[in-house]
This record gives sequence, C-alpha cells and structure tokens, in this order.
Amino acid sequence: MKRDIQALIAEMTLEEKAGMCSGLDFWRLKGVERLDIPSIMVTDGPHGLRKQQEGTDHLGVFDSVPATCFPSAAGIASSWDRELVGKMGVALGEECQAENVAVLLGPGANIKRSPLCGRNFEYFSEDPFLSSEIATSHIQGVQSQGVGTSLKHFAVNNQEHRRMGVDAVADERTLREIYLASFEGPVKNGQPWTVMSAYNKVNGTYASENKFLLTDILKEEWGHEGLVVTDWGANNDRVDGLAAGQELEMPSSGGANDRKIVEAIQNGQLSEETLNRAVERILRIIFMSVDNKKPNATYDRGDHHRLARTVAGETMVLLKNEENLLPLAKGKKLAVIGPFAQKPRYQGGGSSHINPTQIDVPMDEIKKLAGDSASVVYAQGFHLDRDDLDAALMEEAKQAAGEADAVIIFAGLPDRYESEGFDRKHLHMPSNQNQLIEAIATVQSNVIVVLMNGSPIDMPWIGRVKSILEAYLGGQAAGGAIADLLFGEVNPSGKLTETFPMKLSDNPSFLFFPGEGNRVEYREGIFVGYRYYDAKEVKPLFPFGHGLSYTTFEYSNLAIDHKTIKDTESVNVQVTIQNAGSRAGKEIAQLYVRDVESRVIRPVKELKGFAKVELQPGEKKTVMMTLDKRSFAYYNVDLKDWHVESGDFEILIGRSCEDIVVSDTVHVESTVALKSIVDLNTLIIDLLNDPQKAPFVQGLLQKMQEGMGTMLEGLEDSESLGEGSSEMFEGFINYLPLRGLSMMSQGMFTEEMLNGIIQQLNNPS
Amino acid sequence: MKRDIQALIAEMTLEEKAGMCSGLDFWRLKGVERLDIPSIMVTDGPHGLRKQQEGTDHLGVFDSVPATCFPSAAGIASSWDRELVGKMGVALGEECQAENVAVLLGPGANIKRSPLCGRNFEYFSEDPFLSSEIATSHIQGVQSQGVGTSLKHFAVNNQEHRRMGVDAVADERTLREIYLASFEGPVKNGQPWTVMSAYNKVNGTYASENKFLLTDILKEEWGHEGLVVTDWGANNDRVDGLAAGQELEMPSSGGANDRKIVEAIQNGQLSEETLNRAVERILRIIFMSVDNKKPNATYDRGDHHRLARTVAGETMVLLKNEENLLPLAKGKKLAVIGPFAQKPRYQGGGSSHINPTQIDVPMDEIKKLAGDSASVVYAQGFHLDRDDLDAALMEEAKQAAGEADAVIIFAGLPDRYESEGFDRKHLHMPSNQNQLIEAIATVQSNVIVVLMNGSPIDMPWIGRVKSILEAYLGGQAAGGAIADLLFGEVNPSGKLTETFPMKLSDNPSFLFFPGEGNRVEYREGIFVGYRYYDAKEVKPLFPFGHGLSYTTFEYSNLAIDHKTIKDTESVNVQVTIQNAGSRAGKEIAQLYVRDVESRVIRPVKELKGFAKVELQPGEKKTVMMTLDKRSFAYYNVDLKDWHVESGDFEILIGRSCEDIVVSDTVHVESTVALKSIVDLNTLIIDLLNDPQKAPFVQGLLQKMQEGMGTMLEGLEDSESLGEGSSEMFEGFINYLPLRGLSMMSQGMFTEEMLNGIIQQLNNPS
Repeated sequence: MKRDIQALIAEMTLEEKAGMCSGLDFWRLKGVERLDIPSIMVTDGPHGLRKQQEGTDHLGVFDSVPATCFPSAAGIASSWDRELVGKMGVALGEECQAENVAVLLGPGANIKRSPLCGRNFEYFSEDPFLSSEIATSHIQGVQSQGVGTSLKHFAVNNQEHRRMGVDAVADERTLREIYLASFEGPVKNGQPWTVMSAYNKVNGTYASENKFLLTDILKEEWGHEGLVVTDWGANNDRVDGLAAGQELEMPSSGGANDRKIVEAIQNGQLSEETLNRAVERILRIIFMSVDNKKPNATYDRGDHHRLARTVAGETMVLLKNEENLLPLAKGKKLAVIGPFAQKPRYQGGGSSHINPTQIDVPMDEIKKLAGDSASVVYAQGFHLDRDDLDAALMEEAKQAAGEADAVIIFAGLPDRYESEGFDRKHLHMPSNQNQLIEAIATVQSNVIVVLMNGSPIDMPWIGRVKSILEAYLGGQAAGGAIADLLFGEVNPSGKLTETFPMKLSDNPSFLFFPGEGNRVEYREGIFVGYRYYDAKEVKPLFPFGHGLSYTTFEYSNLAIDHKTIKDTESVNVQVTIQNAGSRAGKEIAQLYVRDVESRVIRPVKELKGFAKVELQPGEKKTVMMTLDKRSFAYYNVDLKDWHVESGDFEILIGRSCEDIVVSDTVHVESTVALKSIVDLNTLIIDLLNDPQKAPFVQGLLQKMQEGMGTMLEGLEDSESLGEGSSEMFEGFINYLPLRGLSMMSQGMFTEEMLNGIIQQLNNPS
Repeated sequence: MKRDIQALIAEMTLEEKAGMCSGLDFWRLKGVERLDIPSIMVTDGPHGLRKQQEGTDHLGVFDSVPATCFPSAAGIASSWDRELVGKMGVALGEECQAENVAVLLGPGANIKRSPLCGRNFEYFSEDPFLSSEIATSHIQGVQSQGVGTSLKHFAVNNQEHRRMGVDAVADERTLREIYLASFEGPVKNGQPWTVMSAYNKVNGTYASENKFLLTDILKEEWGHEGLVVTDWGANNDRVDGLAAGQELEMPSSGGANDRKIVEAIQNGQLSEETLNRAVERILRIIFMSVDNKKPNATYDRGDHHRLARTVAGETMVLLKNEENLLPLAKGKKLAVIGPFAQKPRYQGGGSSHINPTQIDVPMDEIKKLAGDSASVVYAQGFHLDRDDLDAALMEEAKQAAGEADAVIIFAGLPDRYESEGFDRKHLHMPSNQNQLIEAIATVQSNVIVVLMNGSPIDMPWIGRVKSILEAYLGGQAAGGAIADLLFGEVNPSGKLTETFPMKLSDNPSFLFFPGEGNRVEYREGIFVGYRYYDAKEVKPLFPFGHGLSYTTFEYSNLAIDHKTIKDTESVNVQVTIQNAGSRAGKEIAQLYVRDVESRVIRPVKELKGFAKVELQPGEKKTVMMTLDKRSFAYYNVDLKDWHVESGDFEILIGRSCEDIVVSDTVHVESTVALKSIVDLNTLIIDLLNDPQKAPFVQGLLQKMQEGMGTMLEGLEDSESLGEGSSEMFEGFINYLPLRGLSMMSQGMFTEEMLNGIIQQLNNPS
C-alpha cells in the first residue's frame, strides 16, 4: 500500500513524533491511534523467537511462547551454506508471522575477537567475509517473509566484560577491514529493517550516539534505509543519540527521554528536521510490517523441527576421526556417557534463549539408529553443576566403557561457564569432564567425544581419543543430528569458522583482552583469528576452515578467466572438486587471496570466497567463485577508500586455511594513483621508488657525487666505518631526507636550491 | 675554575650566541676567541674513540687514530657488571684525555625492540632496568676522567629502517616504562654532559624538536643539566628545535641555521632568553671540559688491551654445553674452522667503528692455550663474502674435523648482514655457515660453535652441536678472551640481556615492524622482550638472563627485611649464593618482581635488581638488593606519575628469567588514593569494588530489589534466559551503569534521584 509518510509526519504533534523515538514498553514500539499508526512488536532472536507470554514483565525475562530453536550462530556459520541459512531464515520468518512479530532481533555479526567472549555462540565467525555472507543469508531468509531483522550489535561489541561501559579502541583500518566489514555486506545486500546499536563505546563515543558509525558509515556510505534501534538499555544521551542517527530507543524510557527530545527542539539544540527524518524511518518500518502482515499465518512445528535437524547436521564439525572410528556400524555395544546425552545443551543463555517446541534427546536418538542388535548403555559419569569428580559416577562410567565396543562421551560447557552477560576467563572445560575423558581412555581405545559448547575449549586429552565431534549449541534437534552423524546417516560437512587455539595465550587479543578499566585496545589490529596464527606461525589446535568428512575430496583444474585485470574489473575462479571416496558427501572449498608484495602491512591471506558442493561417490563438479576489487583491497585511511596495490595476488584454494591444495596468480592493476607530496623531509628511497621521479633523483645523486669528488667513493669504500660499508652507505642514502643533501654535499645544495628541486618534483613538466 | 657564565653571555653578540648552537665543522663546537671560549672536540664512541685523523673530511668517514676497541654494548651488558663497565669507562676517558677529546659520543640506551635492528649491537638490552644500570656505569666511568658522554639516541630510535623519516608511535605508559626508563636512570644518576636526540619522530614530532622529550621530561622532570646535541644531521627546523630544548646542532650547518636563529629572535618568533639558556648550557659543558682537561695525558695501550681482554671474557655467554665438552683439556687434537678464527669480527659497522691498537687473532690465542702436546689445525670451511657453499673448502673442513678430538667452528654474521644504517630482514646466518655446521656434525660429535654477531640468530643446527659460545662483537681482544673461555682460563659468567627467539615471528614487534611507510606503531606496548615471551607462554631458543658456567650455583636463605611496606619505603632483599662446583666462578643473581593481582595490564614479572658475585669452590656469599617504589610501580598516565597498587608482590630470584629458584612475597601499601568521579555512566561493579562506596550501593540494589518484589528473583531464577542465569544476572548487574538502574527499576529511580545519589557518592559526609 502506498502511503504519504511525509504528510503523516506533518500531521503529527511534536510530542507524538518524539514519542515514536522510544518504545511503548519492553517489546513494542508506540503507535498513534488517531493517525492509524499501529504499535508493532519486536522479539529476541536470532535462531528462534523469544516472544514473551501475554502479561509480560517489563524486563522481558518471563517465559516465552514455544518456538523452534535452531542451532545458534556459531553452528549455523559452520555450515558455510548460504542457501541452508536462507531456508532457516524463511522458517523463522514464518514463525514471526504466526506469532505476530514484526521484527526478529538478530542476526549478530560481531567478530569473534577472543574465544572468551560470553556471547560468541551468538556470532558467526572470526572472519568478516564469512560472517557477512552468513548474516546476509539469514536476513534475506527472514525478510522474504515480510518480517524484519535487526543486525546487531553495531559495532565492535566483542566482549561481555563491562559491556555497558567499555570503550573499544581500534584504528580505522581495523574497523573497516574486520569489525565493520562483517556488517557492511549484510547492510548493503540484506537491507535489514533495523540495525541495533551496541552497548559499548567505540573510540570514545557510545555506539548509540556515534555519528561516524550510525550516520556517516551506516546510512550515508552503506545506504541503510531502515532504522537504528538501541540495544536494550544502551541509550546514553537521547538527544545526542538522535542527532547521531539513533532513531529508536528501547525499551520505554517512561516518557522521560521523549520530553528531552521535545525540549531540545524547543530550545534549538536539535532541529525538527532531524526528528522528522528519524520518524520517517520508523514509520517506514512500521508500515513495511503492516503491509507485509500475513493474517492468520501458521507454521508446522513438525516440519520446522525436521528442518532444525537438517540444519544441525550441517553445522556440526568432525574435528578428529582416527582409524575411521566414525561412522559407527549398526549393532555395536555402545556406552554413552555424560549428562548432556540425556539433557543436551543446545542453546546459550541470555536474550537468545528459546522455549523450544520439542527437544531431541541424544540418548534416545542414538538408540533409534544404533541398530536392532545393538546394546546402548548410559552412565552419567560426572555432575554438570559442579567441577569436582564423583568417584562413584566415574567408576560406573569406566565399567560401562570397558565393556563396550566404543564409547561416546558427551562433554562441553555448562551454562554457568558461558553465557551472555559475562566472559570466560579460560578455555578449560570443568575439570571433572577432562578427568573423566582421561579415565575412560585408560579402559577403552575407541573413544568418541561429542562437544556441546558455544566456543572453543582446550583439549588436554586430545591425544587419548580417536574421534571428536564439535556439535556446538545445535538447537532443539541437536540430539537427532548427532545421531545422524555418528551413524553416517548424514556425512559431516561442517567446517570451523573460528580457530581453536592450543592455549588461550596464543590468541591475538590475549595481552590486551578484556582491557583495563573501561578501555580495551584492539592492538592486534587486523590480525584477528587465522590472520594472526598464519602470520605469527602459531600452530592452532584446529585451524580456521577445518572439518573432516567420511569421504575425501580432490581438487583440480583451477582456472582463472583473466590473468590480468584492472581493479575495477572482476575475475572468475573455477575449480573442480571430486568425491574420491565411496560415500556421498559435501565439501566446502575455501578461496583465500594473498597479496604477494605490499607496502602496507597485510595478512598472509584472507578468505574471499567459498562454495559448498554435494558430491556422490566419484562425482566431479566445478564451482565458480567471483573476485572483485574488494577481494584484493585493503582500506586506505588517507584515501578514505578501499585501495588495491598494483601487483600479483595468489589465489589459494583449499580444504582449510592450513590445507591449501591448488593455487595460481592473478595480476591486478590499480586505477587509482596515490598522491604524494615531496617536501624537505621526503626520504630519498621514496623518490627512487617512484618511477616518475627516480631518474631525476638519480641524476641529483650523481651530480652530488661528482661535485664531491672522491669523497663519496671514499665513504662507500671506507674501512673506517667497517666492512659492510656498501650496504651501510645504501642505507644512509635511502633513509636520508632531501634536507640531508645539504649536509651531505657540504652546502652544495642550499635550502633554496632544494626548494626549487622540490617544486620541480611536485610539478613535473 | 669559577666563571660567571651569565656575564659572558651578556658580552656575546646575538650572532655569536646563535653561532654557539651549531658545530664549527663535523666534530668541533664553535668557540669565541675574543671571549676566550675555546672550541672543543667530540668524537664517536661508545666502546672506543673514533677520532678522525687531522685534515678530516666533512663527513667524518676517513681513518681515525688508533684506540682500544672494547666489546660493543651488546656484549658489555651481558657482563651484568656495573663495576667492570665503570672500569672500562675510566679507560675510555683516559684515551679521550690523551687524544684531547672533550666528549665521547655514547653510550646508546635504546631498547632492543626487535632483534632485526641493525644497530642493536650498540645497545644494551631489551630490559630498561638493566640497560639503564649499565649505561649509568659507563657514563660514570668516562666522566670520572673529566670527559663527557652523550647518552643516545633520545628517544625511541629502535630501528635503522627509514631512521630519518620514521615516526615511532607508542602510548605514554610504554614510553615511560620501557623506552624512556632506559634513559631516565643514566640521566638522573649519571648526569651525562650531553644527551643526543634521535633521528626519528616520536608520536608525530621529530625527537630533535620534541619539547615533551627534551624539555618537559629530560630537563624538567629528570633534571638534566647538560646540553642536548642532535644526532648528526638530525636537525629539522632549527628554530623549533631550539625552542623545544635542542641546544646544539651537529655538524655545522654552514651558518645557515645560525642566521635562522638570529632572524627568529629579531622577528619575535623566539625569545632571546631561550637562546641565552641554550648558550648557558653549552658554555657550561665547554668550560667543564676545559676545567677538567689533563694536559699531556697518556695511556698505556698494553694495559688497555689487557683490560679489553678481561672485559671481553665477562661479556661472552655460554649458551649450551652438553656433557661438559667445555672447557677443553690441554693437549687435544683440535680443528678450528671458519674465517673469523683468522680475522675475527669484533666490532660493528658505522659510527662506532674503531681503528684498534691491536687485534687478538683467535687461532693464535687458541694455539697458545691448547697445550704443548696439542695439535691445532685450521680450515676455512666457507667464504665470508658470499652465501653459497664452496665444496672444496667444505671437504677440507670435514676432513680436519673428522680427524680431531673436537672442532671449534667460528660462525656468525658478516658485516654485510648487520650494521648501522639498515635492519636485518631475517634471523638467519648465511646459509653456507649453517650447512657447514650441519656437515661437520655428521663427522664429529664434539662440536663447539663460537658465534660472532651483534644480535640473535636462529640456529637450525642447535640439536647437532654440544657447545655454543656467544662471543658477540667482543672488541680487539675477543680472540684472547675466547681462548681463555674455551680452555677454562676464565669461567664463563655472561648472561643474555636479550631473548633469543626460536623464530623471528615469535618476536613481539613482528607484525608491525618496521612499520608502514614512515609510521611504526609500537602495538605490543610494554610487552617487549621477555615480558612478552613470559606472558604469551612462547618458548624462546634461549631466555633473557640465560648463561652457563663451568660450575654450578645454589640459592638459599631469601630474606626480606620488611614483609609489609608503604610505597614510600624501600625494602632490602638478601639471598645467599653458593658455588656448588669445583671451579671458581661468577654468578649473576636476577631479581624479578611480580604484581600478584592488578587492575592494570602488567607483565608477568619485571627485572628490578641483579648482583654479580664471584665465588670460590664451596664458597657462599650473601648479596643484597634494594627495592623501592619504582620497583613495584607502573606508570599511571592519568596521575602523570608512577603508582603502586596496594597488594602483594612476589619477589622472584633466579638464574635466568625462566629459572626462578627462590621466591617470597612482600605487601606494599599505596599512599596515593586514585580519585574516581561517579557519574551516570559509572558501572555498578566499580562502586561495589570501592570499599567506601560498596555498602551504600549494596543498599541501593537491595532497595531496588525490594521495590520490584519478585521481579528480580524471577530474573535470577528464570529458566527463560537459560540455566546459567545466576552468573548471567551477576554480569548484568555488575556491568550496568547507574543510568541503567532507571530502566531496571521501571522508573523507581528517576534521573533526578540518580543525580542525588551520585552527588552523595562523590561527596560522602
């Protein structure tokens, strides 16, 4: 329906307009009855709806209506499957329509800077390209159903520690290439109805009143058309926020901040035009929701549960599988150990916590698939609510394990170890779990560990077990999906979207995380995740992109359609993948780009493409990935733009960031010349490196040398300074500023002459 | 002699005064004949004089007069011997007096941030305390002879790459605790006659015109009484420099900059008072030299050479010595391999390069000590001036090695690999040397490697050789000292003052060294050297403080005279060291302080004391080290002062930074209360952590809880947010700002009420 929103705004009173800029209560926006502006509802997400029951409390903590709990973001991303994530988004949108929810609060696109961040399970990756692609698919899926999303938490919200006070300090290049890049794709390609500003400060200013983020970048550079909503309670100064591009404060301020907006306009601190623009964006979203409302929408809980199981099966990562212990054959004697087998941890604590429609119990699902002649016994092994060993439980578990053909240990992190609201302090699982695994390994050589956790743990027992399945927080159907994978009903295809470090101190943020007082410095800069492990040559426990299958894949025929391009052009990269095993499976091919030589500091390589492909035994398929300027560029803060340095770039394709199998080179020619102004402090080396200026400067040095007679030769050959003199002399000259020629030449070049030379260098005829 | 310098200045013309602020030529200051102000001479140092022959060239590169070449700074510091360094300083001062040199240009106190810095051999350590102590002894020694020093290169000059253009960007705490701390002790305790400003910029401003460094810190905070001289050619804007506290430009500007100073005063840009103050400092140093001149001074070259041998023996570090291969017994069949055995590398290239009075040839010295019945054969093994193998030389060396009882390989870095003027790009020795060592190890199991190099190298062959002696650049008597150590005439006692990393990428500065264009960011902050390896748990090849002896030492009876002190008090730490072997030797006890718990980011531990002690077999001695406020403090940038957090500090004493053998705890109570102002954005946790404010805030939270009835209990127990809710709830509350109470309490706390509460918290009755 076409509406004249400008006319509507013109009819509104100042108070009504100010009122639109904050919530009616905890979950609803205000409406204006006399103008037929309805109140719409938003609810927590992102991997399911957390819609409060009627009679909601103002803090939004009471029970929510049942909804399908899909795997949390950490797992979803591990599917590397844009299409599947889109399908899940569609299902989430259907549930929102059925529950009369206008906007689902998610997805979260924050970068996993440290594995300790309590909310990492809600985020996708340490890599901005991957995170951005998955977030985009999520948004597109949900919004295809006429339901909005809220891309959060914008921006640089990478820890829970002091989350409402901390100032995240990062240089602009790091912001652009890592932390903002993860939001940029989803905004440009997904157009989320809303973007949620973060609790923290970014470079000194609260994200909720950060004009650089909310207006300059989000609205103006990226063209976001929706509204910006505060994280719940993130508002600091309402008037500053509105001026900075923060349209909507949530939850309700009880009218206090509406009055401040009115006052600010009345006393001229804020222009009414600013308020009108904010209201326009809010109304646009409200009516987008109204116009897309599907009356009497319903969804099939059974269908959605089955979808949740399919999704979960794609998200779990087979980390280790020695001697092909997995998949398990039917009819074996199995011992299943650990409370998670009976009561799985399938989601994280906090705002994303769902009241599921049903839950697959892993133990039950394993029994269903184990085969008729199988024996499956359960032993608890340890207590989840404490860290110390229970000797009796341990003995019982060892007994069961010793008598089995194989043992499946369910381990991981209890809620008290990771959640929204606080960060972890270490990477350890509770010690009773680690001890149990070690003990079981003494009586049973076929040990499979299934992990339920939202973020990496260390594994002191890794050498003692044959198989490890990282199930992450797999949603309500996790139990079924785990059984599918253990017995080969589904072939594992997930791959890690984050590095599992050997130890916490290997993490790039370690020395400066979580900061000092209210200040956290992102000193590792762009070296986040594998960008750091690669460059520092630090061996991880499991690298970014790692994940095993029950079959094997071969790569061949890497083909690049143009070996030389301009930075304004794109290039298509094709590679053929063959299933070399005897079982159908899916492979995720990863494309990394490496700048062979650069004047700026760059990572060894960066993910710039990926493709997931399903292959029958023996089958070959060719996948294509397209690279454009951005695939080769770094962010140049002087240029205030992305920039490609002319030169060769390696195209590296592999199974993980450590397992590159085919590669080739493409030459990219820049179409943008970086300007440099010569002055008295310009170093000789910079002039010699500039093809336009080098001949003139070489002439100058020659002239100086001639004018000084044997002096320079003397210097170059002199034993007085040591035998490395020729290398030393080159260094002396290279790193000399133009003003230094005056000293070197003993006044042969006066400052006046040098200024003339500089003018000539800056304005070549 | 007492002089009225003010009266002298009053007699000088403006032009004469301006003239004093730059050199007469390359090595001499100007005098004013009519006022009996003489021209004095300065020469390069710091481990010997590089005084140009008469008829000097203006670039100062022609041959210099013979002088004793002592070990370079890297070695000197490895002695950890304040007294010995002082003795060497005395000898240097004597040579200056004999050669009519007023000021010796050194020592260099820059911190070894990266092992790649080409000039590291001229610097002492990666640790500011150690560097500061050794520099102080050097200065005190030289200046005791009435000769000045020039503490250089002030400051943050930690690379040769783009040294005249690069801007070193570091936060103030890092400057204070690491890079400036290395200069602070020598300035305060040594009062060097001159301080030399560096080529580079520091945080955007050339060091030569950096008022923060030259005036605020050096003159005002530290009380430097001498003059500041530019590094040769470091002057940028002479008037800005003078205003910033840069008294003397070297070398001569040919009068151009004198004229600029005159003009600036005439046009009011600069006050004449500023110039007068500069001239006063310059005249004070000139007359200090005049008054301390020893006419007809001479020195005994033989004595100084013997001292150089003694010093060198203390500076070399026995890195490895399996099966006590060293010391060598007399009368063995020895093969000596490598050109350095015939022509040692004993000093580095550049301004510190000395024309030595004589040179000990290692091969000759080894023959002298090998014993009458010994056979010592020499094989060249490889070429120093190229990196590829010479098969014939290699074969000859293998032949010799195979027939010997033991082989001594002289290896290291040629001058073309490291020098002033350029940085290394990697840690490798030339590949022919590495290959030779591997090859020799295949035919001989008793391999000793003697290294001649100014900074760490990697050692791919480390597992193949039994002994490694790091000789650094040991001065003209290095050859004799090496023989002394190999045969046990001297027991090795040197210890590393820098970490030898396994690989370059382990170094803390690796990702950001040497920077991008003219900007290098010190992102690792205070985590330089062992501070980084410790915290990141990165295993080095050899740790800071490591060095073996031919005997062993036991530590006992750690005693601290006060277990609780105020930060204004000092504490004495005693420890008993016993020589537990059968050979006399010297041990260097190292005292590290560890802040057990801190609100600021701190290193695991920091060197705060050391003592070198000589012990006969079985002998025990007790050494005492004193700790004061600075030993426990970090630099607080808000306070603009050093600050100690009240709490426990571990006193760790050991043989190296990795080999701590005794420890105890001292409690330090701060006498300075850090002020914090409460406002709407103050987090609850900061109030709860403040013993004064906690009760009031707990009451507040209690009141809120009561007012909200069951709501908060509901939140805390709610299954809606997940099972970790109580930890989560604690996080929510802790990281909530005061303004958040308004939302939490649904308006129970209005902003007005909160402001009242804040006033009460800020002004407790």
